[in-house]
Parts: sequence; C-alpha cells; structure tokens
Amino acid sequence: MVLLRQEIGDVLRTHRQRQGQTLRQVAAKASVALGYLSEVERGQKEVSSEILASVAEALEVPLSIVMRDVSERLASAEGSYFDDTFIPDTLPDEFVAQADIYSRQ
Amino acid sequence: MVLLRQEIGDVLRTHRQRQGQTLRQVAAKASVALGYLSEVERGQKEVSSEILASVAEALEVPLSIVMRDVSERLASAEGSYFDDTFIPDTLPDEFVAQADIYSRQ
Repeated sequence: MVLLRQEIGDVLRTHRQRQGQTLRQVAAKASVALGYLSEVERGQKEVSSEILASVAEALEVPLSIVMRDVSERLASAEGSYFDDTFIPDTLPDEFVAQADIYSRQ
Repeated sequence: MVLLRQEIGDVLRTHRQRQGQTLRQVAAKASVALGYLSEVERGQKEVSSEILASVAEALEVPLSIVMRDVSERLASAEGSYFDDTFIPDTLPDEFVAQADIYSRQ
C-alpha cells in the first residue's frame, strides 16, 4: 500500500536537501521539534495540516507544489502496481525501421 | 492559512457525490465509521494515510488523482493570496488594438 505520509516525507526531504538546509534549520524556522520533523521526513509520523503548512513555508515552497510532487510520486508508485499488459513490450514498427537504419550504418 | 485536510475533504466529497454515492456506502466499503468520514469530508479531522488509502480505494480513485485534485485546489487557493501586482490589470497593446477593430465593426 502506498502511503501519503511516506510520499510527503520524501518530498519535504527532497526540497530541504536541494536547498542545502539542515533538519535543524528547517525545524527552527517552522517552529517544530527536530525529532518530529525527522520522523515526518522518514514517513513515520502523520503530519498535521498546520505543521505541514509551517514546514512548506519554512522551505518557501507553496503547499500546492509539495502536493503536486506528492501526486507525481504516487502516480509513479501506483504505476508499478498496474498489470504488465499496460506496458507495451513491443516497439512500434516505425521505431523498429529506424533502429534497422541505424544498425546498418 | 490553507489547510491540507480541508482540501482533501472537499476532493473526497466531490468524487463521492459525482458518483452518486452516500456517505454510508463509502464508509461501509472503506470500513470506516460514518461519523469519522463525515468529519474528514468537512475538513474537521486529519485523515491517517491508511484510512485515506481505504477511502480512495472505496471510491475507486487512485490516490495520485486525489492528491492531484488537492494540489490544483491548493494552487487556486494560494493564488488568491498573491499580491495584486501579479495579475496584470492592463491588456497587452495587441489585444487593445484587436478590441478596437471589433468595436468599430
């Protein structure tokens, strides 16, 4: 089962690390306990809406962007659950023809 | 402050109502208490990741779609907080010229 809190944690951590900020810095700006933020990032704690808003603000990332990233990660995770028949295992003819041309060069 | 739980609640309710399902039906399918689901829909209760997954499954909506809808609602809500200067209050010259042409016809 794909869990929202894990994806939220990953997205928050990704934004923080991309900005080169430490857990301590973000926790201080968001006025949340360091240990709590760490657990949230690891997907071990559900984050309340108020604290999520504070952390997003501390990261200067709109909540809509955090949730857009979460949605994309969820879609990717859900994709791996789909039946294999959704993924074509043959190449379209025009790609094969193209590949033939290159292989003969 | 825009709160995640309110947007999640609105999105879940929208999907449920679009499907013509009652709170009772979805609560039963998701194995959650009717009163709890009602509070979640009204944005009064934080929903755990496990229960959110169950409700999304009961609605047969992938969690990624729920969160995409949430992200779009958040973006719209955030937009209303932006300073007015982000919204141009004048039309580009070429639009004005175009409007002049039409008004003279």
